[in-house]
Amino acid sequence: MSRDRLIYLPLGGAGEIGMNAYVYGYGPEGKERLLLVDLGIAFPDMDTTPGIDVILPDISWLADKTDRLEAICITHAHEDHVGGVGHLAGQLKAPIHCRRFTANHARRKLRDQGHDEAMVNVADPWPAQIEAGPFKIGFLPISHSIPESSALVIDTPAGRIVHTGDFKIDLTPGLGESFDPDAFREVARPGIRALVCDSTNVFSKAEGRSEAMVGPNIRDLVLASSGMFVATTFASNVARLKSIADAGAAAGRSICLMGRAMRRMTEAAVEEGILTDFPKTISPEDAAGVPRENLMLIVTGSQGERRAASAQLSRGKYFGMEMKEGDTFLFSSKTIPGNEKEVARIVNNFSEMGVDVVSDDDLYHVSGHANRPDLETMHALIDAQCVIPMHGEHRHLREHARLAESLGRTGVLAPNGTMVDLAGNKPNVVDHVETGRSYLDGSVLVGQFDGVVRDRIRMALNGHAVVAVMIEDDDRIMEDAWVSLRGLPEAGRSGRDLAEEMERELSQRFERVDTRTAGDDDAIEGIVKKAVQKVAQEEIGKRPEVTVLITRLAAE
Amino acid sequence: MSRDRLIYLPLGGAGEIGMNAYVYGYGPEGKERLLLVDLGIAFPDMDTTPGIDVILPDISWLADKTDRLEAICITHAHEDHVGGVGHLAGQLKAPIHCRRFTANHARRKLRDQGHDEAMVNVADPWPAQIEAGPFKIGFLPISHSIPESSALVIDTPAGRIVHTGDFKIDLTPGLGESFDPDAFREVARPGIRALVCDSTNVFSKAEGRSEAMVGPNIRDLVLASSGMFVATTFASNVARLKSIADAGAAAGRSICLMGRAMRRMTEAAVEEGILTDFPKTISPEDAAGVPRENLMLIVTGSQGERRAASAQLSRGKYFGMEMKEGDTFLFSSKTIPGNEKEVARIVNNFSEMGVDVVSDDDLYHVSGHANRPDLETMHALIDAQCVIPMHGEHRHLREHARLAESLGRTGVLAPNGTMVDLAGNKPNVVDHVETGRSYLDGSVLVGQFDGVVRDRIRMALNGHAVVAVMIEDDDRIMEDAWVSLRGLPEAGRSGRDLAEEMERELSQRFERVDTRTAGDDDAIEGIVKKAVQKVAQEEIGKRPEVTVLITRLAAE
Repeated sequence: MSRDRLIYLPLGGAGEIGMNAYVYGYGPEGKERLLLVDLGIAFPDMDTTPGIDVILPDISWLADKTDRLEAICITHAHEDHVGGVGHLAGQLKAPIHCRRFTANHARRKLRDQGHDEAMVNVADPWPAQIEAGPFKIGFLPISHSIPESSALVIDTPAGRIVHTGDFKIDLTPGLGESFDPDAFREVARPGIRALVCDSTNVFSKAEGRSEAMVGPNIRDLVLASSGMFVATTFASNVARLKSIADAGAAAGRSICLMGRAMRRMTEAAVEEGILTDFPKTISPEDAAGVPRENLMLIVTGSQGERRAASAQLSRGKYFGMEMKEGDTFLFSSKTIPGNEKEVARIVNNFSEMGVDVVSDDDLYHVSGHANRPDLETMHALIDAQCVIPMHGEHRHLREHARLAESLGRTGVLAPNGTMVDLAGNKPNVVDHVETGRSYLDGSVLVGQFDGVVRDRIRMALNGHAVVAVMIEDDDRIMEDAWVSLRGLPEAGRSGRDLAEEMERELSQRFERVDTRTAGDDDAIEGIVKKAVQKVAQEEIGKRPEVTVLITRLAAE
Repeated sequence: MSRDRLIYLPLGGAGEIGMNAYVYGYGPEGKERLLLVDLGIAFPDMDTTPGIDVILPDISWLADKTDRLEAICITHAHEDHVGGVGHLAGQLKAPIHCRRFTANHARRKLRDQGHDEAMVNVADPWPAQIEAGPFKIGFLPISHSIPESSALVIDTPAGRIVHTGDFKIDLTPGLGESFDPDAFREVARPGIRALVCDSTNVFSKAEGRSEAMVGPNIRDLVLASSGMFVATTFASNVARLKSIADAGAAAGRSICLMGRAMRRMTEAAVEEGILTDFPKTISPEDAAGVPRENLMLIVTGSQGERRAASAQLSRGKYFGMEMKEGDTFLFSSKTIPGNEKEVARIVNNFSEMGVDVVSDDDLYHVSGHANRPDLETMHALIDAQCVIPMHGEHRHLREHARLAESLGRTGVLAPNGTMVDLAGNKPNVVDHVETGRSYLDGSVLVGQFDGVVRDRIRMALNGHAVVAVMIEDDDRIMEDAWVSLRGLPEAGRSGRDLAEEMERELSQRFERVDTRTAGDDDAIEGIVKKAVQKVAQEEIGKRPEVTVLITRLAAE
């Protein structure tokens, strides 16, 4: 006799930092009613995903089961949690639930992709609950680095789950809701089946620091600086924006926000009633008329993004503003691993201008995630039957599970695709599901393994030789092939033109090709590739990618 | 009346970490006899230099003046100081001077590129001096993370310069020469014109730590571990290799070195008499027969390099060895900025295998460079008329110059291409020289701005559409063009084949082309690009790179 299952299945986020997507299910095997928590994106890089715009979790497992999907709940408005809504919610056709500030972003994302924003429902915070099939879901406020982040309290007939979302334990977050240990204790009182818990900072051993400590440090720095003061941070960290702006206002500076994301975030925060006492800001046009020692810019681009305001200012003028010797530029942020070189490029550009760059992340930044001691606190507060680490690379999940075990709890290592049944006496891995990522490339979704990205990387590493071959209607190859090179040097060791050397080699080989071979496209392609790569090897010591275009002339 | 000049001119290294190349000159303006210190490389990355093998300083300024070049002195055997010798020394045709261990590497590099290794002369350490034109150069032993590093004491008729090379202040370096403050004090006694000083760690505020502290920590770790123990570090850090191997031997483990660089470095160290009591090692073949709890592997690939031993072990078998649950993998190294993702990939792979990865660089690694307090010590020891920061990005040089100024000295900010005359009462910038980088791509040197790398990046970001067009001998375009796509999706929004859509669009446009236009290659190319990009924009929201191959059929 089959009993009902309570399943947990990460489709994204449990194997990377980014693209969070966690499925919960309740019901008989194969007929569970489903709930999706978060639908985020990850960001591409030149090494592995050149030219890709956005990385999305592969949700095909879920897309096959939309008739069973009751709801999508979004914990907070960071891109790695809400960024996939515009691209994927259309496939899932389920109502989206989130709090006001998050809803503001989710709606915009749906609009941008031509979807109906009425899919988005605003949830009131806990103790309010949303009913979705067998689930009752409560949005319990939790501190993080963006307004209105929520842990989810998920009630099912088989018991209660707490899904933390991204969080830190901050009793003085500056703006918005502080962490309320009593609320978590209260939620935990009936007993918790599983604590599904953020893992990103599990390797950080120090206790987490509060947002409240950043403001005074920034204030001191602004007061001590003489030229223009420019600060960058994550645009979504509205509390930080306010700390920075308050510091500027306290120093009698006019505040100007620069960069699209910066303006969008503050607008959303004002619209949703979160930002009520932000200092008055001025436009870049007006800023140009303010003496620089009376001016503060708050700009996008803390990660060195090429097109953001920081990078543009480091290269020259941006909306009429320009950095000069004696100005100060503050990174009120941490460099995310992988962005070091881009950030260093900006710092070096500023250094050449004589701008003082300040980037001490002990003084001017705090993380939005729970460090190891704070994870221990959360484990103790919730005191669940098991701890399932989520949001992290494999190393983070494993370390977090070991941490739980070291404290006498059951830790469950469940990377993407691992289906865990939580209904029994102990968590039980019941299935492994195919997961992966898909790429938004321009306006099209491409698969991870369909060769598009692989071919781009190969062209970037090896260059690309293109050869046009013509074959007459009587299957004779015309001996003059055309070679065109991209991403390859014009001349090699011999000093002669490389493309011409290849054409010469091709002509010689074509002379020896009989009409039977010439009738076979694959055979010709093989001959051309061999000839081109032989010349390339001799002349430049490389094996380029080769594309052969064969044209067969029709009989007149 | 012109007096003799004493010039300093960095061609590489003063604007990046890597590709060190510093010119000194003495004599009348424009006739200075020249000395080159170091000839290093930098490493490429996918973001800016895809497919490139090695980045070299552009030495054309010097290559024009080989008749004035007296000597090349190499401070130590790290790639960013000696790596360019094989590729560039042929152009410079000057004798190379360095100490034994460095000479071992320099000779191999010359051999590998088909040059005469007799160009390399072994220098005895200070107080021995080499005479080279107006220069007398002494190799003063200094501690760093590779054997036989030297500061250069450069005597000229206009006074003495101390060029530190890369260094740290380590009184107990474990293997090789320890830092000798008395020797530096003694060298400084006659008075020093300029201290030209390593800047890479100027932002590290803590006092530097000694190599001697690493060994005991590794020993404790090895003793506490049960499965196979694998450690990686920079192969050139021979002292570290010995510390690790000694820890293995103390725990009764057999030692096996894996990876080409690892074996090459230890061989060189043995050949030159530096490594005298390294524990006996076994081959990978023999290692396969040793119980894993009795085995230690020391492997290459601390920076996550795809082909090195660490990465291979993280993906599966390597020379018959395989990592398993319960094994330990130690990074006795620091991740160089930019390599975070590659290193994380390895750690995650090991995590999936159940291997315990240890990477605490406070316990198991020390830097080879002088931190800020150690730089202050060096400034004080040498007490020069000015401090010229070298080896660092612009931000490091500027910070180091400010440090010198803050301590009451003259700091000279002289990035690549800045020619400073040191002969007068105070240092004087007398010229700016064109500098840059050139790229070794396969076996060919390509220029930084000649478009090869730019085109590769564009293909990687945008994909590449290739079109073959044929034109009859009467200047009529044949309406069937061929389109082949690389790095682009097969189908776009319409769901139809993308290349075929482009061919269809081309056919339609070709119908309207008159014979005059068809006679003009540029016009045809323009038409093709426009058509291809229009279809691409509609179908996939991207603008691919386009190559057009036009074949004109000759009249029979």
